[in-house]
Amino acid sequence: MIIGFTGAGLDRMDQLRLNAERLAAAIAHDSARLLALAGLDPVLGPDGRLAWDVIDRSEELILLGFDGDAPLFAPLREGQIGGAAFSMFRVLSEMDGRDAAIWGAARALNEWHARHRFCGICGGRTMPFRAGWARACTGCNAEHFPRVDPVVIMLAEHDGKVLVGRQPRYPQGRYSALAGFVEPGESIEEAVARELHEEAGVLATSVRYVASQPWPFPGSLMIGCIAPVAAAELTLDLEELEDAMWVDAGDVRAALAGAPDAPFLAPPPYAIAHSLFLAWLAERS
Amino acid sequence: MIIGFTGAGLDRMDQLRLNAERLAAAIAHDSARLLALAGLDPVLGPDGRLAWDVIDRSEELILLGFDGDAPLFAPLREGQIGGAAFSMFRVLSEMDGRDAAIWGAARALNEWHARHRFCGICGGRTMPFRAGWARACTGCNAEHFPRVDPVVIMLAEHDGKVLVGRQPRYPQGRYSALAGFVEPGESIEEAVARELHEEAGVLATSVRYVASQPWPFPGSLMIGCIAPVAAAELTLDLEELEDAMWVDAGDVRAALAGAPDAPFLAPPPYAIAHSLFLAWLAERS
Repeated sequence: MIIGFTGAGLDRMDQLRLNAERLAAAIAHDSARLLALAGLDPVLGPDGRLAWDVIDRSEELILLGFDGDAPLFAPLREGQIGGAAFSMFRVLSEMDGRDAAIWGAARALNEWHARHRFCGICGGRTMPFRAGWARACTGCNAEHFPRVDPVVIMLAEHDGKVLVGRQPRYPQGRYSALAGFVEPGESIEEAVARELHEEAGVLATSVRYVASQPWPFPGSLMIGCIAPVAAAELTLDLEELEDAMWVDAGDVRAALAGAPDAPFLAPPPYAIAHSLFLAWLAERS
Repeated sequence: MIIGFTGAGLDRMDQLRLNAERLAAAIAHDSARLLALAGLDPVLGPDGRLAWDVIDRSEELILLGFDGDAPLFAPLREGQIGGAAFSMFRVLSEMDGRDAAIWGAARALNEWHARHRFCGICGGRTMPFRAGWARACTGCNAEHFPRVDPVVIMLAEHDGKVLVGRQPRYPQGRYSALAGFVEPGESIEEAVARELHEEAGVLATSVRYVASQPWPFPGSLMIGCIAPVAAAELTLDLEELEDAMWVDAGDVRAALAGAPDAPFLAPPPYAIAHSLFLAWLAERS
């Protein structure tokens, strides 16, 4: 199963991040490359692959990792908050999976830098260090590390069907798995049960983990699960979902195939909801 | 399997957090209670259970959730950063599991408030809202939500044995599962493989998820996995681990039982490493 934004296959070389001498050698390396970005969006070359530039020493650099012998960097643009334009999602659908994973790490890190220019503890200005993987406060010296928000995304399952819901902001016809942020003081399993109960009024009887994916808009860890529920009756939270419905394996197959008579438009292949549907179908075959 | 800091069993009532009228009614409810805290540490009554006070309206309040009809609150003490004293860990070993989960949520939220008094985007002062589950910037109006840091914690497995490591800060004799923060741009499975390679030089051939746990020091989501590795040879990162060793099922059983001749001191039952050892033994029986 292919999972979006995974499989970058870089050695992140954590041990270089604080080693000024080895880091300088990596930057000066003949095969060092700098990720081309338009704002925070990917730039593709004529071959459809990520475009790379030579190192620009006027940029602050993030060490993405090594691709074999080649040190790969991204520019650190701490003022820039991305948004997620429809045009960019179209590009993503056509991007090589490994490229999407490499770009996704650069995007998520840049979003984090933009949102952490000041220290939450004292309000002082923070500055990047650790080759772009941390910031330190110039006021109180506190160290801040990249934030990753765990999100549970799950298919409720009952009587051979799974539950799909529609948020008001979705494109027309789109339905997907339900999802929500994991809160302090709960496990993945408790967050799945809470979200299903809050959004759809269904009671999970168990939760099984399926797969996970980083999601760089701006920086989540999507944790995909399937959860059998006690009964099919729904009580929707209409502020979260404008509709929800139970769909069977045939419906899901039709949606994933993009069939014109499918009862809903499936999420795109780079979204883990797509992988969740595939995993659920695979369990049943 | 009992997993530490889970099983609070409260209805968090997300829909009340922004509803001023219903929130006021909950605060005024006859059975509303306020968690007693010493700093951020738990206070136990004569029965060994969490102590609760009547609502103190001079305190800023966090809505923890409803225990049946009873609305439970915790004081919001945004100046206070906890630390984790040995005395508190001793108390935890003796606490009721449900109490530990309820207190853990209060602790993690308070730690988050203390570390987010200022806005990372503009440096302005932030103030709590959503009944303690968010902060808003008085400068740029940005909304900030509680941070939960996903951490992978894993047993590498080879030839009927699992890998345990020792960090310099551990109590004497203690060994545990290896662990590390999930970084932007990687899945759970990729983080497990990266950490095992960085810290011990072993190559994961697959990763299976076992269980998860919130860890309120200050606010992690521990994601427990088991990962078969290609070979037993170790190359330790001596800045992370001062020692590591392969142990078999008998060793693990002896350690969990606290046997005097056990080859290592096991992590305490409220740590998910303990649950991981139990899950691994259960798979083999």
